[in-house]
Amino acid sequence: MPIREGDFVLVVGDGVRLVIKVSRGFRISTIRGVVNADEIIGLEYGSVVRTNLGHELVLLRPTITDILLERGERVTQVIYPKDAAQIIISAGIGPGSRVGEAGVGSGFMTAILAYYVRPGGKVYGYDKREDAVRTARKNLEMLGLLDWVELRVGDVVSDGFLERDLDAVILDMGDPWNAIPKATEALRPDGVLVVYVPTVNQVIKVLGSLRDYGYVDVRMVDVMVREWKTEPNEVRPQTWVNAHTGYLIIGRRSIRSGKPTK
Amino acid sequence: MPIREGDFVLVVGDGVRLVIKVSRGFRISTIRGVVNADEIIGLEYGSVVRTNLGHELVLLRPTITDILLERGERVTQVIYPKDAAQIIISAGIGPGSRVGEAGVGSGFMTAILAYYVRPGGKVYGYDKREDAVRTARKNLEMLGLLDWVELRVGDVVSDGFLERDLDAVILDMGDPWNAIPKATEALRPDGVLVVYVPTVNQVIKVLGSLRDYGYVDVRMVDVMVREWKTEPNEVRPQTWVNAHTGYLIIGRRSIRSGKPTK
Amino acid sequence: MPIREGDFVLVVGDGVRLVIKVSRGFRISTIRGVVNADEIIGLEYGSVVRTNLGHELVLLRPTITDILLERGERVTQVIYPKDAAQIIISAGIGPGSRVGEAGVGSGFMTAILAYYVRPGGKVYGYDKREDAVRTARKNLEMLGLLDWVELRVGDVVSDGFLERDLDAVILDMGDPWNAIPKATEALRPDGVLVVYVPTVNQVIKVLGSLRDYGYVDVRMVDVMVREWKTEPNEVRPQTWVNAHTGYLIIGRRSIRSGKPTK
Amino acid sequence: MPIREGDFVLVVGDGVRLVIKVSRGFRISTIRGVVNADEIIGLEYGSVVRTNLGHELVLLRPTITDILLERGERVTQVIYPKDAAQIIISAGIGPGSRVGEAGVGSGFMTAILAYYVRPGGKVYGYDKREDAVRTARKNLEMLGLLDWVELRVGDVVSDGFLERDLDAVILDMGDPWNAIPKATEALRPDGVLVVYVPTVNQVIKVLGSLRDYGYVDVRMVDVMVREWKTEPNEVRPQTWVNAHTGYLIIGRRSIRSGKPTK
Repeated sequence: MPIREGDFVLVVGDGVRLVIKVSRGFRISTIRGVVNADEIIGLEYGSVVRTNLGHELVLLRPTITDILLERGERVTQVIYPKDAAQIIISAGIGPGSRVGEAGVGSGFMTAILAYYVRPGGKVYGYDKREDAVRTARKNLEMLGLLDWVELRVGDVVSDGFLERDLDAVILDMGDPWNAIPKATEALRPDGVLVVYVPTVNQVIKVLGSLRDYGYVDVRMVDVMVREWKTEPNEVRPQTWVNAHTGYLIIGRRSIRSGKPTK
Repeated sequence: MPIREGDFVLVVGDGVRLVIKVSRGFRISTIRGVVNADEIIGLEYGSVVRTNLGHELVLLRPTITDILLERGERVTQVIYPKDAAQIIISAGIGPGSRVGEAGVGSGFMTAILAYYVRPGGKVYGYDKREDAVRTARKNLEMLGLLDWVELRVGDVVSDGFLERDLDAVILDMGDPWNAIPKATEALRPDGVLVVYVPTVNQVIKVLGSLRDYGYVDVRMVDVMVREWKTEPNEVRPQTWVNAHTGYLIIGRRSIRSGKPTK
Repeated sequence: MPIREGDFVLVVGDGVRLVIKVSRGFRISTIRGVVNADEIIGLEYGSVVRTNLGHELVLLRPTITDILLERGERVTQVIYPKDAAQIIISAGIGPGSRVGEAGVGSGFMTAILAYYVRPGGKVYGYDKREDAVRTARKNLEMLGLLDWVELRVGDVVSDGFLERDLDAVILDMGDPWNAIPKATEALRPDGVLVVYVPTVNQVIKVLGSLRDYGYVDVRMVDVMVREWKTEPNEVRPQTWVNAHTGYLIIGRRSIRSGKPTK
Repeated sequence: MPIREGDFVLVVGDGVRLVIKVSRGFRISTIRGVVNADEIIGLEYGSVVRTNLGHELVLLRPTITDILLERGERVTQVIYPKDAAQIIISAGIGPGSRVGEAGVGSGFMTAILAYYVRPGGKVYGYDKREDAVRTARKNLEMLGLLDWVELRVGDVVSDGFLERDLDAVILDMGDPWNAIPKATEALRPDGVLVVYVPTVNQVIKVLGSLRDYGYVDVRMVDVMVREWKTEPNEVRPQTWVNAHTGYLIIGRRSIRSGKPTK
């Protein structure tokens, strides 16, 4: 497949890893030298080009998370791909799923959800903050994923979700326990609720609320993905890792969950 | 949605978590007592039923991984959902992707891939062992995912893949370094190669081969998902966890990768 | 050094790892066959003997933790060596230290403390349960460490410690927050308090109490020690590990800590 | 106990944690303001002083690792306390032990060993680099631990250890497999060999050599100590942790270990 103007390209080389957007006249500037974007238009993905300093760079199609992490605008702490992947598989989200999300923040999780519910599903994303919704929209547009997302400014704690019978609802907010009644209304009777919180104080509150609202099959995990150095003669884990982002709590609604059990 | 005959149902209760297949006359037998399958046909998912001993059970739609882990037949060590999720997101696999896999083993990874490439993609699965392919086929049929998979008995090391221009190839075999030349032929010029191996001895060989074949953007991770106890008054990680399954090594082909660089 | 009657000996061989106490007439029975204890008396440590089935066994001096883990009597959950080691180094405990401990439980932590405060230090161990103190005494006697320990049946929450000006106090009990006032009285003005608790609910209470009582330099860690398989051709982490024992919370008294700050 | 001139003092306050050496006329300068060292001489440890900006600082006796980590001079990568503690407990090192060490590097491990073998034991430390031995000596002198250490410039691979019948030998060097023959000569017949290496390539070589030299009871671990935030209302692991320092491999000599078994 040839590289076209407007494409995102992942450029990798010795110590180089960046995602650029191809436009005529743009200079791709790296620590290994410069390449003119005009030169790469029309090349096959996978091609190797040489910088003005003689170093080689390889041109790759970026994954959605490459683009998000390198080019996505951030107004909030974001959910990382490792956690997003675990949420999606644990909640059974896939092509065709209808998913609610509050709050969308910068829209990273929203984008990953949208990517995986295509082409038949939809993500309904809420956030109280207008700037968050604006940023999320920008990021989703950049990725061409807006068709699979409805974004709304709104407070789900007070106003709830407009949708009903959702397969899953994801809560990524400071006080998710307050949103459980409205999330329960929006879920199908055996729908999946996913809560993502960084502190154990929040964990305890969420677990108590899930019990009060009759959620079942409640599980909690934390995900640690350890990066390694890949030099064949010196293989070892990276020294510093991001050892904590948040806890994932996953429970299932039942027909009992309409109102608190106590 | 009502429960119908032939459905898989996830039954959860106090100390109970099992996936059953609904058939008339079947007795759902748990440590909390028995429920007659006839009674649950026609009930909504999310419903609560009472066993003969008076305990409550909730009836849920299982996720694909619930079914696999509880009902899947195994002839080999399987790739776990935590690793499958990380592979899928790291390789950018999603709806529409065309993915090669060797070896398929019991077909757990194949099933999860098939689930996520729907409806427009396809998984091409190879295994030397006829019994593995037979088991994988059974598991995929059970999950209704055979339409998105081509299974073949064959040795990719000697005979390679029939497909070309694949988005990703996943190698889950004892000597993946020997399969890299054929995997390279099958990949699109900037395709993603994922290798999954349990030992560091294998890791070193794979990293060396990837370098020799001109793979770029090589990363390696191991994924640890820690399960927690979710009793709100006594929140703590489970004592024993599965701390190691395998290492994930992910690299990108380039047009240079056709033949070894040394 | 020759093996004598009464010694503990660590016997290792293919699939064999046990600690025995040498006595005349005793048969050392392993999955690789039997050796008569009479035959090993007088042999050097490090010697190799052959079982009746022709397999080799090596005779080693066990470490204190080998003896504890293999021969120690248990009435309670014990503190593991990995955590004991971290406590000792974090609290600066060493030869000459005077340390309080409540509750002693089976005396595993007590024994490790006693081992490291020798010859000039002392451990003062309390437990409400007479059977715990009895078991701890038996374990300490087995290890020859009773000279460095005073054991007392007593409730430190109500009655406190008899000692004053201790270098460190270790609390391993269900409600350590209730023992902080009395532990504070027993510590030297800048003494080290170590609290060991398994749940995050307890963690939150302990951290709140430490703040209320004016403790400073408060740190908290959890220790994960991952065991590996050591077959040179197949090096990999063990699949299952003990991923959680407890949280270690370590703080320093100040002259302000006599009474709660609020 | 009163603070005297020449003492190391751990000064802690809001965002402040430093180890100073008390000398008349010295100004203790922190982000919370300044305190004159003259004012703290004669105060009890545990005392609270006020800076010129009105903030409180608490004065504590530092542990040996506080002093090492904050004041120790470094010429090399050092062994961290978490690993040192695990080495000491796994090897059964304690008061009275006689321990060999190569290479000493900056002497951090040496110092911790010296601290725990007091008063009857001794550490024999070797390093090829004169500057390392010089730095190690300086650090040990700073801690008052030189009486329990013999430092020697020398290459143990070629020249071996002068000592015999050591309880344990610790190898912290790039090619520890080359030092195993000489380490074996220096150990008592059932002595403990500890090897500390950062990469899995080294691990594989060490495990192979230990097998060749007839070492038994070989174990390998890696130690992860996760730091937490201790704010009672927001308890969570620190985001970034040091996830890898090195692997600890521990084996026992036998009388067979004099020469390689193959």
